[in-house]
Amino acid sequence: MESNSIGKEFVITCFGESHGRCVGVVIDGCPAGLALSEQDIQKELDKRIPPKPEIVSARREKDVVEILSGTFNGFTTGAPICTRVWSKEAIPGEYDLIKDTPRPGHADYPARIKYGSFNDYRGGGRFSGRITVAFVMAGAVAKKLLGLFGVEVLAYTIEIGKVKLSTMLTLEEIRKNTYKTAVRCPNLESAKEMEKAILEAKKEGDSVGGIVECVASNVPVGVGEPIFDSLDAEIAKMLFDVPAVKGVEFGAGFKAARLKGSENNDPYVIRNGKIVTLSNNAGGVLGGLSSGMPILVRAAIKPTPSISKEQRTIDLSKMEETLIRVKGRHDPCILPKAVPVIESAVAIVLVDLMLRAGFIPKVLGGQK
Amino acid sequence: MESNSIGKEFVITCFGESHGRCVGVVIDGCPAGLALSEQDIQKELDKRIPPKPEIVSARREKDVVEILSGTFNGFTTGAPICTRVWSKEAIPGEYDLIKDTPRPGHADYPARIKYGSFNDYRGGGRFSGRITVAFVMAGAVAKKLLGLFGVEVLAYTIEIGKVKLSTMLTLEEIRKNTYKTAVRCPNLESAKEMEKAILEAKKEGDSVGGIVECVASNVPVGVGEPIFDSLDAEIAKMLFDVPAVKGVEFGAGFKAARLKGSENNDPYVIRNGKIVTLSNNAGGVLGGLSSGMPILVRAAIKPTPSISKEQRTIDLSKMEETLIRVKGRHDPCILPKAVPVIESAVAIVLVDLMLRAGFIPKVLGGQK
Amino acid sequence: MESNSIGKEFVITCFGESHGRCVGVVIDGCPAGLALSEQDIQKELDKRIPPKPEIVSARREKDVVEILSGTFNGFTTGAPICTRVWSKEAIPGEYDLIKDTPRPGHADYPARIKYGSFNDYRGGGRFSGRITVAFVMAGAVAKKLLGLFGVEVLAYTIEIGKVKLSTMLTLEEIRKNTYKTAVRCPNLESAKEMEKAILEAKKEGDSVGGIVECVASNVPVGVGEPIFDSLDAEIAKMLFDVPAVKGVEFGAGFKAARLKGSENNDPYVIRNGKIVTLSNNAGGVLGGLSSGMPILVRAAIKPTPSISKEQRTIDLSKMEETLIRVKGRHDPCILPKAVPVIESAVAIVLVDLMLRAGFIPKVLGGQK
Amino acid sequence: MESNSIGKEFVITCFGESHGRCVGVVIDGCPAGLALSEQDIQKELDKRIPPKPEIVSARREKDVVEILSGTFNGFTTGAPICTRVWSKEAIPGEYDLIKDTPRPGHADYPARIKYGSFNDYRGGGRFSGRITVAFVMAGAVAKKLLGLFGVEVLAYTIEIGKVKLSTMLTLEEIRKNTYKTAVRCPNLESAKEMEKAILEAKKEGDSVGGIVECVASNVPVGVGEPIFDSLDAEIAKMLFDVPAVKGVEFGAGFKAARLKGSENNDPYVIRNGKIVTLSNNAGGVLGGLSSGMPILVRAAIKPTPSISKEQRTIDLSKMEETLIRVKGRHDPCILPKAVPVIESAVAIVLVDLMLRAGFIPKVLGGQK
Repeated sequence: MESNSIGKEFVITCFGESHGRCVGVVIDGCPAGLALSEQDIQKELDKRIPPKPEIVSARREKDVVEILSGTFNGFTTGAPICTRVWSKEAIPGEYDLIKDTPRPGHADYPARIKYGSFNDYRGGGRFSGRITVAFVMAGAVAKKLLGLFGVEVLAYTIEIGKVKLSTMLTLEEIRKNTYKTAVRCPNLESAKEMEKAILEAKKEGDSVGGIVECVASNVPVGVGEPIFDSLDAEIAKMLFDVPAVKGVEFGAGFKAARLKGSENNDPYVIRNGKIVTLSNNAGGVLGGLSSGMPILVRAAIKPTPSISKEQRTIDLSKMEETLIRVKGRHDPCILPKAVPVIESAVAIVLVDLMLRAGFIPKVLGGQK
Repeated sequence: MESNSIGKEFVITCFGESHGRCVGVVIDGCPAGLALSEQDIQKELDKRIPPKPEIVSARREKDVVEILSGTFNGFTTGAPICTRVWSKEAIPGEYDLIKDTPRPGHADYPARIKYGSFNDYRGGGRFSGRITVAFVMAGAVAKKLLGLFGVEVLAYTIEIGKVKLSTMLTLEEIRKNTYKTAVRCPNLESAKEMEKAILEAKKEGDSVGGIVECVASNVPVGVGEPIFDSLDAEIAKMLFDVPAVKGVEFGAGFKAARLKGSENNDPYVIRNGKIVTLSNNAGGVLGGLSSGMPILVRAAIKPTPSISKEQRTIDLSKMEETLIRVKGRHDPCILPKAVPVIESAVAIVLVDLMLRAGFIPKVLGGQK
Repeated sequence: MESNSIGKEFVITCFGESHGRCVGVVIDGCPAGLALSEQDIQKELDKRIPPKPEIVSARREKDVVEILSGTFNGFTTGAPICTRVWSKEAIPGEYDLIKDTPRPGHADYPARIKYGSFNDYRGGGRFSGRITVAFVMAGAVAKKLLGLFGVEVLAYTIEIGKVKLSTMLTLEEIRKNTYKTAVRCPNLESAKEMEKAILEAKKEGDSVGGIVECVASNVPVGVGEPIFDSLDAEIAKMLFDVPAVKGVEFGAGFKAARLKGSENNDPYVIRNGKIVTLSNNAGGVLGGLSSGMPILVRAAIKPTPSISKEQRTIDLSKMEETLIRVKGRHDPCILPKAVPVIESAVAIVLVDLMLRAGFIPKVLGGQK
Repeated sequence: MESNSIGKEFVITCFGESHGRCVGVVIDGCPAGLALSEQDIQKELDKRIPPKPEIVSARREKDVVEILSGTFNGFTTGAPICTRVWSKEAIPGEYDLIKDTPRPGHADYPARIKYGSFNDYRGGGRFSGRITVAFVMAGAVAKKLLGLFGVEVLAYTIEIGKVKLSTMLTLEEIRKNTYKTAVRCPNLESAKEMEKAILEAKKEGDSVGGIVECVASNVPVGVGEPIFDSLDAEIAKMLFDVPAVKGVEFGAGFKAARLKGSENNDPYVIRNGKIVTLSNNAGGVLGGLSSGMPILVRAAIKPTPSISKEQRTIDLSKMEETLIRVKGRHDPCILPKAVPVIESAVAIVLVDLMLRAGFIPKVLGGQK
């Protein structure tokens, strides 16, 4: 299996480039019998476009999904599902600058060395954040499937620039508020400050990063496969595949390194006839298996590397130092777009591992 | 491919349980022509035994490696290499307690639910840290191979309990000092304080965690495969497969989330005719590809869950709450043993991706 | 990896159904730097339409290929290549008959049991020979790539119905004549008789099968990976994935079972400074590795199961025996269409294994 | 996944060489809860040693299996199962002849070119038939598992040299007689003639091949995954991985190429309330899925390439023609040993595909 596919039973293969003709995904292993329409996917894609245009890139083409295969009479058939959105093609010449002058913080330089003159450098080509449209399309299918089994996956912003979410959140708040705010932060107060931080950075021709948290509720006990396909490892892999993610932690995460065993261990108790833990420092993962507690994961997202400030770089054609000022449309903060991507990534992994552990059957329903 | 194998061209498959007969690994895809002896592997295994017995578990069986296949006349042949260490088998009855009373912070509970009464619960069975012997054996092969291509991988402790490494390190110091200290921290001052922190926790019947950092130098530009087998994603996956890892970050990591783009981007310059970046906030990874700068990754390791303090848990046979005090041999801090494991994990991933990108040939030397 | 993908370094993932919107393929792992246009693929697709309409199905839509991703400035970039042809969608109702009354010799019955009511039964759905359009599109890329390394793959008909090719063939004849004849047999005499056999069967509302042979010349020594990805095993797997193939043999094949060792072994000699064998009973494969002699493989293809003669079957809705007469467009012999498919299948496997053995680099040319 | 592993859910990884220390296999993905002892495996290994020493190689070391991991209290745990037999190591010097003088019909020449001077040439090294011990060990587990689900796999000889099995066989005869005869042919008359053919060849310093047939009964409808992991493709791949197999066919096989559609199609009828087909030309496979009828497959096995007759070959060290007479122990006919290997190969594939299709659960029994 090459690197543009991921998963073992719910396998997604993505294709397309930032300024190519389209971005698409083939989903193989989706059980037969899932009711699936283009609208199911479209509504997830639409979440990538935040309501306040000023905090995102000027490029705002509406992505319209088409399902090319794998459904019949409104249901999945067990055959691979291909979905696709068209892209506007690059304006010729617009990106010629990048060809020889790699933008700091982007994949331009290593991609050029790896693929030589064949590299599709337009807008970052294969390395662009635009590729995450594929994650969201596959995630829409994954989330619909998880819903049938009571599993809910919710991602949201908890930090942007130096603004941290100030309060604890309830699932209810997360569900209700996340997509009300332009920054996808369920706390409306914090959201406003985050917006401000973005706009300030934008004014300076600069950018900010932040942290996205994701919680998956109702995951049954025992999801994850030892040793190498553990639940946390699979989620982490998928999250690091999202461009701009530089750190991933579960539960107490890096803080766990500073706790004592007696503080960090989550004690088991019985509540309403169910085994639960009093705390969730483990983030719902023990020994790579789900523990029955909510899966709690956080991803650190770096500030957008495309900034209009002048930066030092190299002119590769002359092998000499030079300066670059990245023109064109770019997001002063990627988090508003990243939230549905992180949510999708986690959902995709969960479906794969729930299929593998036998929690999701190959054919849904009893409709045979 | 099931979950006990990892890698695409340098594939390791591990087997064995904490108290089974042995722990072993099959390494498939190692190029023909690598000089390899049992001593090469033994010396890495020996690194798992820190010099000060008081800071680790009382279980100190010396692991003696055997190579069962894949070499001929002192060189690898291209055939799979199986290596193995014997285990002392469990004393019958010693672990019966765990069977129905899951230890908080361990995999006991989800493993029991997943595999039912067939679960090998002795010492954590398949979920024990002992399994990482397999990582170290494969890592020994990987590191020897990387050495032929000038790549060096070094892991070391930078934090234990609340003690942080106080100074910047040079590669020279890391090479020289790491294995001089019981805690595997290259700074001798910090190392002493870390030891103290461990011994204090031990006295209380408690445990501490910490952070391991790993640096890989001299990795060529362009290692990593887009989109899903990116260098950082592959390393993160492997690190989260190491028991007790709860967070992974590259370069500036979680701190990057608080930087501006202009601060976080690493500017390109030419030094001694080579393209380098002035800073390394990216940790040597851009767009999932190596940038030519050192790969810098950190893993947060939780405090050992086995503590002798009393903890709340459940008696599964009666489905009622109870208390547990974990007896037997356990490490008050896992980091001393974890350092060579982390180093091995990173080395294994690098070999796999360097093979995939064509930096390592399938047959070494020109000896045909 | 799910079942709609094949290959390890040159990986193809196919999607689409007989009467869905399209048939497509994603090719992942094609080296960067291959000159590739839609015309390169179109000319292979066109080979599926034999010149004499009377010997094939009445369905003769021209398949027009589009490349959706993976090329830039006329060259592959190393990114996945998605290609697709549109299908005319099914006339509603046309295939309703099949839904409950499986056609003998088709996948209808097991597919219905496997996927229940969600099965896309229209024209055989996912199990239709139409899916092989994906093989041919990927094969076009594979053959172009092989050409750069001097490898030539040629398939042709050697038997149809009871008509066998009467003479030995030269590569020159195969190249020149195969696509001159409607049945894709390089011997013009035999081709005529084969045509006659097809037309006779057609007149009776019946069908005929036959044998396709494929020769791959100039394959370097050592292609194939022991033990499980041996060259013959990989080719056989791919050929059995072609609908209607019921047998595969290499070199002397089933006849080898009746030879003595001294007759079947191919003796080594030196000819023009090169090591060759005097005979090629091995079909170019020894121990799963290419021997340097031409790869010679034959596939037995069953008679088309769709016939207009009345056949016994079951009405699954009533669970009672009934009769079926398959209406609509069908080929009295599938071989004319199968020849380019077999050729493609062999080419795809060779590229995958040549990449794996290091005979094809990840980036072509010295154009960096 | 490298080439020494096969399967997706029931994955076997084999290691060892003809004259290395041992031959072993790691079985990953075996469900938890299978009662498994060394005796279960030993009795299958013993089938490789035919009762009449004169018809097989003089090398008759008894292979004694050890289970190294994956069981606890007599049951599989869900962890990888490693089993192994020791080998007598090569007598130094015995095989030096082969190093530079490849034996016709063996892998010696391509292996030497592929791996250069690192190739383990002793007794064919990694390419020896001895490797099939791994198939049989894994097959023992697979067959035990299949038995729980009512599936029976039986292989037997139907042709050796020019002697063909003269009569039709019943399952009862196959079960009763196969292992009564030295040649593993269930018809006692034919068996005697086959023995004679072997002894005659032996007397001449020559060898004979033959055909093994394998029938799998009671396989549920719908086993096999479209498009690329079809049941027949997966079985064929595994069979071609068995050294010496040169052809594979299902049901009518190559004969189907000469039948009309109306003759070859298997008509559906109802018998005892069950859907069956009147004939089984399909060999139980339609569109790559099991049809519910017995899976019927045949493998053509070439005559053993090791013969004591003088043969032409090349001295690679001098690059000149020479003669070779292969000394040492060799089988005048490999079929007696191949029968349990073929049976194992088919069983392994069936378990993998039945797991994938959900017919076998990940944890057996209701013993949780």
